[in-house]
Amino acid sequence: VSAAPFSQVTIVGLGLLGGSVGLAVQANMPEVRVVGYDADAAVRAKARALGLAHSIAETSVEAARGADLVILCVPVGAMGPAAAALAEGLSPDVVISDVGSSKGSVARALADALPGHHIVPAHPVAGTERSGPDAGFATLFANRWCIVTPGEDADPAVVGRVVAFWEALGARVETMDADHHDKVLAVTSHLPHLIAYTIVGTASDLEAVTQSEVIKYSAGGFRDFTRIAASDPTMWRDVFLSNRDAVLEMLQCFTEDLTELQKAIRKGDGDALFDQFTRTRAIRRGIIEMGQDDARPDFGRSDHSGKS
Amino acid sequence: VSAAPFSQVTIVGLGLLGGSVGLAVQANMPEVRVVGYDADAAVRAKARALGLAHSIAETSVEAARGADLVILCVPVGAMGPAAAALAEGLSPDVVISDVGSSKGSVARALADALPGHHIVPAHPVAGTERSGPDAGFATLFANRWCIVTPGEDADPAVVGRVVAFWEALGARVETMDADHHDKVLAVTSHLPHLIAYTIVGTASDLEAVTQSEVIKYSAGGFRDFTRIAASDPTMWRDVFLSNRDAVLEMLQCFTEDLTELQKAIRKGDGDALFDQFTRTRAIRRGIIEMGQDDARPDFGRSDHSGKS
Repeated sequence: VSAAPFSQVTIVGLGLLGGSVGLAVQANMPEVRVVGYDADAAVRAKARALGLAHSIAETSVEAARGADLVILCVPVGAMGPAAAALAEGLSPDVVISDVGSSKGSVARALADALPGHHIVPAHPVAGTERSGPDAGFATLFANRWCIVTPGEDADPAVVGRVVAFWEALGARVETMDADHHDKVLAVTSHLPHLIAYTIVGTASDLEAVTQSEVIKYSAGGFRDFTRIAASDPTMWRDVFLSNRDAVLEMLQCFTEDLTELQKAIRKGDGDALFDQFTRTRAIRRGIIEMGQDDARPDFGRSDHSGKS
Repeated sequence: VSAAPFSQVTIVGLGLLGGSVGLAVQANMPEVRVVGYDADAAVRAKARALGLAHSIAETSVEAARGADLVILCVPVGAMGPAAAALAEGLSPDVVISDVGSSKGSVARALADALPGHHIVPAHPVAGTERSGPDAGFATLFANRWCIVTPGEDADPAVVGRVVAFWEALGARVETMDADHHDKVLAVTSHLPHLIAYTIVGTASDLEAVTQSEVIKYSAGGFRDFTRIAASDPTMWRDVFLSNRDAVLEMLQCFTEDLTELQKAIRKGDGDALFDQFTRTRAIRRGIIEMGQDDARPDFGRSDHSGKS
């Protein structure tokens, strides 16, 4: 067993992600000291009660003191201000990282806020629809991917320590540049969320179908979308604002494809529909083979547990 | 305990739905004789091996003989031909029903194929992404809704027996007219499937992002859509062809809403995004309170079972 890559980890922002990092570090690297901070006093109190960190500081400057790794776990639009606010507590050798879902804009915001510091942005592709300090759990990152997006001038040894940190939490780590990350996540995460938020909104506004009917008959497929559309609104507002270009590009592709299927339905072109519906099965198989989803029917939802 | 509403149930089409009906009747109404038929000899053999019915007939005419309830469990586009094919085996008092996901076109097809017979279309809002005879299970309908859509001239006593049948399988039954059913399901089921099929196709075709990257990072939200998009292509082709008008109407509403969010992203209108993302949470709460989905984060997927 090698030594932990850091001796004190400071987590700023104690919601689902920050809280899970705190619990995961304590579970996997007991020798590492974990310090937490959240701008919301009620969250700090809850975090103390839940033991999300060994200690919860009252200011981010205080939290930053002594840390050799600071992880910002705030909405991506708040990364720059949160980084600037703790600057005077930082030691010169500290590594700054984050868990934001978009990386280009975060890398720029952190570089502007903390010039001269080691900055290695990261994005664990993990989460649930819950948010807040009581939503976190220690195994959130187990067998999930974490994407690390160092800048071109990053010190490889420092990047290696961040990689080792996430591997110690159970994650599988991949390194890529921030722009490519933002395109990949635009399609695998941001566009799905945008579409889920849209369709749930559409269903709420109909006149021909009541909201209680939508709820009642949601097991026909709709309920899957409502889970994603229950995600944290502030986090997702910031994701769309910060990864605008990649999201709009993917949305354009989606809209073209949807228009094509619309036309096939309107014209009664069953062959075109069948072809499209057949080719999408392979991706599901790939995801299950890669261990990235539950293979049981209906995600193994509890009401079908008698089957599995 | 009241007597079963039918003494012999014949199931035509032994995929996920037909197989589940067969198993559910045997589990809940042991006094009822269950006869099955499928046009595919391999499916018939599999159904025999799995015990989906007490007996599996070699022709649908033979299967229909002696039945007081025939349930057609074939893709909605095949309902009319399947009904016509078994007509000569029917007794005069038999009740004809089905499990199709669209009801207006099915009601017309059955009435054309079997004039003078009792026809009470039904749609159990239940299923998984699996298909085929080995996908069925006896508890598929437990606590799920089944919508019965009798025509205006249907005999209330006959409708009552069909309602009692589905209640005996564990379903909660609602009655409405076929047109309204088709609008409700267009939004709660058909549009979600269309969108899921579309985005999975979009993600497969990108040049900037490889298919293996899409699979790898699917836990960010995309994987939820791939489950739905793994559903049976023939069944869904027929749904879109048969419920065209309602689907196109809902799709129009969705497209307008998506265009509005696209504009908000392009203009950087964070308030509009935040407002939309906030209002969608209530529907999720409603679905969970109604017992129509698993309340655990991430549907209680197995990789998070340590948490729940």
